[in-house]
Amino acid sequence: MRRAVSKNLYIVIAGCGRLGSLLANDLSKQGHSVVVIDRDESRFAELSAEFSGFTIVGDATEIEVLRRAKSNQADCFLAATNRDNVNLMLAQVAKTVFQVPIVIARIFDPSHEVVYQQLGIATISPTRLSAQAFQDAITQSGRGQP
Amino acid sequence: MRRAVSKNLYIVIAGCGRLGSLLANDLSKQGHSVVVIDRDESRFAELSAEFSGFTIVGDATEIEVLRRAKSNQADCFLAATNRDNVNLMLAQVAKTVFQVPIVIARIFDPSHEVVYQQLGIATISPTRLSAQAFQDAITQSGRGQP
Repeated sequence: MRRAVSKNLYIVIAGCGRLGSLLANDLSKQGHSVVVIDRDESRFAELSAEFSGFTIVGDATEIEVLRRAKSNQADCFLAATNRDNVNLMLAQVAKTVFQVPIVIARIFDPSHEVVYQQLGIATISPTRLSAQAFQDAITQSGRGQP
Repeated sequence: MRRAVSKNLYIVIAGCGRLGSLLANDLSKQGHSVVVIDRDESRFAELSAEFSGFTIVGDATEIEVLRRAKSNQADCFLAATNRDNVNLMLAQVAKTVFQVPIVIARIFDPSHEVVYQQLGIATISPTRLSAQAFQDAITQSGRGQP
């Protein structure tokens, strides 16, 4: 399922929850340089023994914390905290202040998606992806065919 | 992004949260017969004005509630409550007691996935789907290419 990303990239991830930690582990394993930021140090326990990146305990909504993560050098920034509004704000800052080329925000509430798109921020909606996967599963089963 | 599912199906959805309500609205719009179950009646406010299915206020972990939803006639059953353990249980009951042909459980914690697979239950993991979408976004940007 996972395609390898070959070039070595510098990736900053805000939020070390399920998505943040999964990506940090995967991307680090693929050879990328990863920095994960979380306010709660205990979250870093989700990082695997092979994780070779850096962790920063701090609030990613503080510019100083993003500076410590060297966000200005980042190729990618993923806003993956558990709050949609925080992710929107972080994505905007990563894009405008630190000029990160690839900025993606995870959003839980699909109704917020329009706001992000208007601001030119790429989003990943777990809810929409799951709904699509469910519909694909029905179609693949043959029951949903005409 | 959404592919239409053409044949009319009878679909039972347990949990009217973000995923449950999104799917209920979409599938109903496509002409399917949808029944949504939730313990919390206020959740049904998320259903659109065009939703033409049925709602049942009740705990889906009670067999009687699943019977009221006519689960034995369902083509598809989606366990989309907010608790992984509940979804696992519901999926098992839908499969074994009501013999629903297509049973899918949404799970938040990817580490639970193995348990489901061992039990032969199809799962949808928003976390994995999101991680894959993020990796695809990097690859598509060209930065992740060799």
